[in-house]
Order: sequence, then C-alpha cells, then structure tokens
Amino acid sequence: MASGGDQRKAIEAVNEAFYRAFEALDLGAMDQLWAAREYTACVHPGQEVIVGWPEVRESLAALFAGTGKIRFRLTNLRIEQKGAFAWAYALENIQHGDDVLVAVQATNLFEKTPEGWKLILHHASPISDEAGEPDTDFLQ
Amino acid sequence: MASGGDQRKAIEAVNEAFYRAFEALDLGAMDQLWAAREYTACVHPGQEVIVGWPEVRESLAALFAGTGKIRFRLTNLRIEQKGAFAWAYALENIQHGDDVLVAVQATNLFEKTPEGWKLILHHASPISDEAGEPDTDFLQ
Repeated sequence: MASGGDQRKAIEAVNEAFYRAFEALDLGAMDQLWAAREYTACVHPGQEVIVGWPEVRESLAALFAGTGKIRFRLTNLRIEQKGAFAWAYALENIQHGDDVLVAVQATNLFEKTPEGWKLILHHASPISDEAGEPDTDFLQ
Repeated sequence: MASGGDQRKAIEAVNEAFYRAFEALDLGAMDQLWAAREYTACVHPGQEVIVGWPEVRESLAALFAGTGKIRFRLTNLRIEQKGAFAWAYALENIQHGDDVLVAVQATNLFEKTPEGWKLILHHASPISDEAGEPDTDFLQ
C-alpha cells in the first residue's frame, strides 16, 4: 500500500499534468487525467457547472479551439487526501497570449481509481480586481 | 449502517441547513454544520480560498455583519457520495435586500464525521452576466 507521502506525490503529479495538458491544448492527455464518470464535472470561470465527462470533454475541446498561448503558474497550492478521495486548492496565475494575466481560484477533486488518481471536478472562479493582483513572476 | 438513500437525505439536509443558517445570519448554526478542521475551506465569490475553520468562521461573521436580508433559492442541485465523502453542486439564486439578484455556482464538500456529515468546503463563484439570468421565481 502506498504511503501518505507517495499518495500526495501521485495526486500532485496529476494536478500538475492537468495544467501542462491545458497549456499543450492536448485533449488526448486530458483523457488520461480525468475519470470518465457521469458525475465528472467542471466549472469554467463565470459559468455554471458542466456535468458528465463527455460534456466536460466537449467544453475543453471548445476552449482549446479558441485558445492560442496559455500558461499557468500555481501559487498557494494545497493538497488534502482522505482515503480514495483528494482535493487541491490553488491560485492559478494565467497568462493568455503574451501579456494578459488573470488570477483564478481553483478547487480540483480527485478520485482514486484502479488506474490511479483521476480528476472528477475542476472548479475555477475568477478573482475580482479588488481582491489582489496575479503573480507576475513567470511573465517573460 | 445507513443506506445510500438515507446518506443522501442526510447530506441534502446539511446542505439545506447551510443555506437556512446563512439566511438567518446564524453563526451558532454554522458551528454545527461545519467540520472544525485545519483543512476546512471557503471560497467566497471573487476571492481567494480561505483555509482553516477559525479563518472561515471569521469570514462568515464578517459577511453576516455586513448583510441585511439575504435569501437563497437552489436550482440544479446535484449530490454525489462516495464512502465518507460527498459533494454537491448547486446554482445559488441569491436575493440581496429586496430586489438585487445574482446567480452563483457553488460546490460544497462534506465529510462524514462521528457527529454526522459536515461541510469542509464551500466554493462559490459568480456567474457572468453573459452566461444567463438567475431564477426569479422566488422573488415576492
């Protein structure tokens, strides 16, 4: 049985892979990272929840089709795990194109499946301008 | 052992009690509904996550102090449960005062404790004006 530290590393790796797949606009990589469940769900910033993996996948495909360069830098990442369930909080500092920067608060839920830890929810919500500035360290 | 249907009813009751406690601006009721854990967390609309029950409780107290009349009507409520973990999605149609109405997408996480199902996360994110109108059925 994997130790708590190993579990945490595995969850963090899936969380990290999600953002790298998003940057690569790689739907095939997303297929490996999400659990294809009827309860799998996604809340895109400013939108209502989308429920069901086919619907979530379709929303990601539409997002990718409309996106050029996108980069995520996570700050304040925190991961919690209880049994076969885990969740992560992170502030996403998102660079769209070359200079547009927004901050988004994310909650990601993970379920441990026979194929390893998989995403079952990504809830992303915009941070209002009054609440603070995104981290610009990764702008180049 | 409680059946799946009983579990669901218990989770739905806690979810419902959370909104009634919010309407009553009742911090004592909130104490009974949340798990007082160091990982208990809350994302208020437009803000970064607040982690730790004392900090979450303080944020609720500040919200309550600045709020007069507030009413929640939930639509598209969906509850999922796996073992000692459960989560709910709902669209909160929120009436502030007598006529200001906003729509907020919420994810609520629950953990089963020896004292029953308790909230460990409330993530609430604003729906942008372009994404749709809130449900006005409950306005009087």
